[in-house]
Amino acid sequence: MRLPRILAPRVTASAHCDLPCGVYDPAQARIEAESVKMICEKYQSNTDPEFRTRAVVIKEQRAELVKHHLWVLWTDYFKPPHFEKYPELHGLFNEATKLAGASGAKGSLDADVAQKLLDKIAEIDKIFWETKQA
Amino acid sequence: MRLPRILAPRVTASAHCDLPCGVYDPAQARIEAESVKMICEKYQSNTDPEFRTRAVVIKEQRAELVKHHLWVLWTDYFKPPHFEKYPELHGLFNEATKLAGASGAKGSLDADVAQKLLDKIAEIDKIFWETKQA
Amino acid sequence: MRLPRILAPRVTASAHCDLPCGVYDPAQARIEAESVKMICEKYQSNTDPEFRTRAVVIKEQRAELVKHHLWVLWTDYFKPPHFEKYPELHGLFNEATKLAGASGAKGSLDADVAQKLLDKIAEIDKIFWETKQA
Amino acid sequence: MRLPRILAPRVTASAHCDLPCGVYDPAQARIEAESVKMICEKYQSNTDPEFRTRAVVIKEQRAELVKHHLWVLWTDYFKPPHFEKYPELHGLFNEATKLAGASGAKGSLDADVAQKLLDKIAEIDKIFWETKQA
Amino acid sequence: MRLPRILAPRVTASAHCDLPCGVYDPAQARIEAESVKMICEKYQSNTDPEFRTRAVVIKEQRAELVKHHLWVLWTDYFKPPHFEKYPELHGLFNEATKLAGASGAKGSLDADVAQKLLDKIAEIDKIFWETKQA
Amino acid sequence: MRLPRILAPRVTASAHCDLPCGVYDPAQARIEAESVKMICEKYQSNTDPEFRTRAVVIKEQRAELVKHHLWVLWTDYFKPPHFEKYPELHGLFNEATKLAGASGAKGSLDADVAQKLLDKIAEIDKIFWETKQA
Repeated sequence: MRLPRILAPRVTASAHCDLPCGVYDPAQARIEAESVKMICEKYQSNTDPEFRTRAVVIKEQRAELVKHHLWVLWTDYFKPPHFEKYPELHGLFNEATKLAGASGAKGSLDADVAQKLLDKIAEIDKIFWETKQA
Repeated sequence: MRLPRILAPRVTASAHCDLPCGVYDPAQARIEAESVKMICEKYQSNTDPEFRTRAVVIKEQRAELVKHHLWVLWTDYFKPPHFEKYPELHGLFNEATKLAGASGAKGSLDADVAQKLLDKIAEIDKIFWETKQA
Repeated sequence: MRLPRILAPRVTASAHCDLPCGVYDPAQARIEAESVKMICEKYQSNTDPEFRTRAVVIKEQRAELVKHHLWVLWTDYFKPPHFEKYPELHGLFNEATKLAGASGAKGSLDADVAQKLLDKIAEIDKIFWETKQA
Repeated sequence: MRLPRILAPRVTASAHCDLPCGVYDPAQARIEAESVKMICEKYQSNTDPEFRTRAVVIKEQRAELVKHHLWVLWTDYFKPPHFEKYPELHGLFNEATKLAGASGAKGSLDADVAQKLLDKIAEIDKIFWETKQA
Repeated sequence: MRLPRILAPRVTASAHCDLPCGVYDPAQARIEAESVKMICEKYQSNTDPEFRTRAVVIKEQRAELVKHHLWVLWTDYFKPPHFEKYPELHGLFNEATKLAGASGAKGSLDADVAQKLLDKIAEIDKIFWETKQA
Repeated sequence: MRLPRILAPRVTASAHCDLPCGVYDPAQARIEAESVKMICEKYQSNTDPEFRTRAVVIKEQRAELVKHHLWVLWTDYFKPPHFEKYPELHGLFNEATKLAGASGAKGSLDADVAQKLLDKIAEIDKIFWETKQA
């Protein structure tokens, strides 16, 4: 179920291009990771070889976008004081981007692997919004 | 102000790559448009010529992403029954993508133009979520 | 057969980048769609699995270019008076881009589907040149 | 003036992606070069600094596309027998791509330079269609 | 001065795409960073406004490539045992990519800033080759 | 075996973007070609169909980068006096880029084909460094 739009939180602008514009949002990484997970599920339930080839091709692209959006957050949004306050942050990002790569969602068609990626992004998302409110 | 994460609506997966994966979200277009607006504001308050050149370059890219995300929604998410129910939808998307282009946010550094783009995306967003709940 | 170059119509410049430069030509979409069709034909006559994987990968890219070129025409070239004069134009573009996508040429390796895409582009091309001569 | 569509030569499909699909057409390079020329003209007649920055940014992209389309023709379409029959072909392509680069259309906002690029593409186009008819 | 090719070290293949292929080399980041530095120097010695706009545009692209190549090394090449042995590695990469971004080489046209980026890449390069020899 | 870093030749900056910045290095093409070769080897020793699809997809991208880096050298670095002194240069580049394309490394998963591409790049590399020392 979805809350009525009127109750939904308005995204507070923050910074995601390298001007920097100041608009960052982990939702960008999460949406691509949701896509990766759905592709795995569709792959598992469809044995047509052409469909499966397309699924692998497209999953590769979406997973690359996950990596990119996470790298941008790690380098451009998070600053030294954040890394001091959250010493696990470097490791979290390194694990999350590895989970999007060959040893994770790129190299697997198991929706559980994609879910682990989503869980890791959720951990980053939690810290992100804490730092925004600080 | 932002609601605690626990209360925030979970994005219901829907479809944004062309497998299709079934994950669509107008937030992708909106985040880029927020970036466009912030770039305009930063441009207006900074007269350094190198900064201004970078602002124009980067705004061009973010506005192009707005167009792309909107085009994907229009072609890939919305189906004939949606266009029947919302006859204004074609026009809305055409105006929104024009507002992201040369006659709108690409061709202007006025934050008000970027706000008009955001308003148009909000209209699309409203219809999008109505169709998701249907 | 091809007419001697001397008799061939010179492309009248019109506008395809978002300056806008004023150079538009549906030939860009059509050339990519011709490519899509040829890829389907080559796929059907070659059972080598590596070749077939490459065919699917490359068709995905060319079909994406078809969509992009069509979207640019729809948003950047066509103006409100055109949509008034040709009320079917929105639908034509929506159908054409869908025919290039997952429910059409991306999702199929049938050359007949690619031909339908080419036919739809030809309808757009006809209107385009009528508006150029007006 | 443009000939009625019915009289216009149908593009004979030939090969432009690297499957290869067999669809090549120098029109792809020419359309981008027309765009480059129009951008130069618009730049010269508009002194607004933001417009001029956008013109330089966009010209850079279109000129890069000219180079790419020409490189594809040179490597993928033309074969050893063509280079034997047209010994000037290597030089023509090298000059044409240089004319699209820093020492030509990228590094200049003079429409005459862009016209020289168009003339060079026309020379290549002439040879291309001779080889297609052979 | 350059050593004769015969004495130059042969690159030992290692891994840089996400298959992974096993070919990594910090030279990719360094070459782009050298480009960034040269662009700064050329910018400082040329006051032509069109040239300067092009310099800013192109520097943005090369600096983005620096970030990308570094991110790939950090996520794809380096493994947990490396981070244990070199606890400064996370920080080094975070600083290096920041030095390539808005607070560094993207946001500046000072060749000294680009040199700092090159120095940071050299530190990473040193560790990289130590781990390759291990 | 690798020489200690201290003995390794420092890359003499030269020019690889189209400002031009003056930084060119055939290592960029060679690193991507090494990747292509490794992908072929990994493909041959792994019969998992998903892995193989990914290998074909990624090889296509790396081979395209080989072509691009070689085209840049041919058009942007080498000048008329070079082509006079090395009349075989046009042919070498045409063959090398063909070897990276459909009739070579793109169209094959044989590591020997990729090695031929590497050998051809080595021939270009030799001439490149001779011209740098001249």
